[in-house]
Amino acid sequence: MKHPLLALAALALAAPSQAQDAAEAPTPASVVAAAPAADWRAIDPADLMVMTLAPDREGNPRQVVIQLLPPPFSQGWVENIRTLAKAHWWDGTTVYRVVDNWVAQWGDGEDDEAKAKPLPEGLRVVPETEYVVPTNRALPIALGWKGMLDRDSANPSFAEGHMLFRSSSLEWGLYETYFEGFPVAGLGHNHGADGWPIHCYASVGVARDLSPDTGTGAELYAVIGHAPRQLDRNIAVVGRVIEGIEHLSTLPRGKGDAGVYDDPSLRVPIVSVRLGDEPPETERPRFEYLEGDSFARYVEVRANRNDAFYKVPAGGIDVCNVQVPIRRMHE
Amino acid sequence: MKHPLLALAALALAAPSQAQDAAEAPTPASVVAAAPAADWRAIDPADLMVMTLAPDREGNPRQVVIQLLPPPFSQGWVENIRTLAKAHWWDGTTVYRVVDNWVAQWGDGEDDEAKAKPLPEGLRVVPETEYVVPTNRALPIALGWKGMLDRDSANPSFAEGHMLFRSSSLEWGLYETYFEGFPVAGLGHNHGADGWPIHCYASVGVARDLSPDTGTGAELYAVIGHAPRQLDRNIAVVGRVIEGIEHLSTLPRGKGDAGVYDDPSLRVPIVSVRLGDEPPETERPRFEYLEGDSFARYVEVRANRNDAFYKVPAGGIDVCNVQVPIRRMHE
Repeated sequence: MKHPLLALAALALAAPSQAQDAAEAPTPASVVAAAPAADWRAIDPADLMVMTLAPDREGNPRQVVIQLLPPPFSQGWVENIRTLAKAHWWDGTTVYRVVDNWVAQWGDGEDDEAKAKPLPEGLRVVPETEYVVPTNRALPIALGWKGMLDRDSANPSFAEGHMLFRSSSLEWGLYETYFEGFPVAGLGHNHGADGWPIHCYASVGVARDLSPDTGTGAELYAVIGHAPRQLDRNIAVVGRVIEGIEHLSTLPRGKGDAGVYDDPSLRVPIVSVRLGDEPPETERPRFEYLEGDSFARYVEVRANRNDAFYKVPAGGIDVCNVQVPIRRMHE
Repeated sequence: MKHPLLALAALALAAPSQAQDAAEAPTPASVVAAAPAADWRAIDPADLMVMTLAPDREGNPRQVVIQLLPPPFSQGWVENIRTLAKAHWWDGTTVYRVVDNWVAQWGDGEDDEAKAKPLPEGLRVVPETEYVVPTNRALPIALGWKGMLDRDSANPSFAEGHMLFRSSSLEWGLYETYFEGFPVAGLGHNHGADGWPIHCYASVGVARDLSPDTGTGAELYAVIGHAPRQLDRNIAVVGRVIEGIEHLSTLPRGKGDAGVYDDPSLRVPIVSVRLGDEPPETERPRFEYLEGDSFARYVEVRANRNDAFYKVPAGGIDVCNVQVPIRRMHE
């Protein structure tokens, strides 16, 4: 009991660097370590956005890498965000609002329209209908859903690589899964099915005013706490932080209204925000995420931990507790 | 769109200070503001523990208030913790491990048993069987469960003040609710039902080594991310941080093995840890939490946001997203 306790569990998550001895029980880390190259999918640098904050007070660099959502989700806002990034609009803006167990938010943050930073040309007003992607019953398969909770089964279980999540909503027919590495929800109904991206820790969304079509993409937030499921379908999820979330989650919490920094000196300067394909080829951010059978196996093992540390498997997992493995590619 | 966006939603959560105009849709804040005094229950200062950290580098005080779990849960460890606090054992120890979206951990943190701080007399070795409270079928009612998910209903809904949560586990018959302000789970089976406390953001647990009976209560952690459901029944939850979690959640993340600070200067000194009833009467911490019909109404409204900001109610809520209202009592 003198050891840094919980250490092994966290280490297994944090440092999936060694293939596990075959005699040991599988862990999420051992599944990741054993994944073949074919189960790692490269993320196009054009779908990444690198936000460079001013160095911290010890002079350490602070870089936050965001992956933008793929079609068919939230593309109106994603296109606005590309326009803003290409215009270097965020350069010189700040992280101005941080609320514990809620969000860190950045952009212009100016209440007074007369003083607000002018937005670039070409931004769309995106209607709230785009929070959800309506389609026909084929949606789950089209979106890569591999399974859904059989709500009438007395013994739902992982089988044939299916990924099952119990929803945190009570709506009948609602299920949650992953689409190209992003957590999403789907809801079947009489005339088809709807799909939408959901909020988890590190998700990035478009802040807005009261009217649902007021978010341009200029003011963004990242979730730094427990998944705020109530925001889903009420606000646009546009991506997620895949590296550097700690540069947002460790910022001092704001003491002004709604967690805005009342002391302007606390605002964190944003040096630049760049799309990943703006720099020369050799300087582009290169990441990959786990998919395929290895990802299915990873979810199953994470949902049923039963190894050196864990004695009682949970028997299931919250979609936001999955934490898709993502790593830098080393050439 | 120039406003500090998401502001109203956050403000409503953060500052439940005004009763809402009757014409407006109810919000969690308006429910809290309208709650009668009878629905606020005082927390006995003897069940609180105040951890004073060294001031931050601007000299601001840092105090973390922890509420200990009530019987019948985790009482072996809770008693050890009372013994440690009465012995002032934590004075001079540190917060030595912080992992993003996981935990902040404190205590002695010494791997080398020869150098470890001696523990006080009288600590029990608590067996893993105490992670769960087995009892008969009356457990849900005895524990104050007011409702459970009717898994066979096509249209589960809030009714008659029942609080319904879909579980993040797939186990049949598993449900989650609140007991004296704490999130707990229950599992019915043929010969009775089991109950156990669960991990949410700000939950406090007993770190341990690989063997489940190795946690004394001397090394503790607080959750600073999405609920790690896999830890439930594998480690002892003993309480939760009710004030000052930001003094743990904003600490720099550790870069050593398992997130331990490799740079010892980052360790945050713990000045003192005191039970709430150690100081004179007038200096004791006084808090109260929401229960009764107001709490049931609060959960219902939080699960079905439909107000000035929210347009699409979620139709349900994750047990860890409820965030029981707690406030300081002002005499």
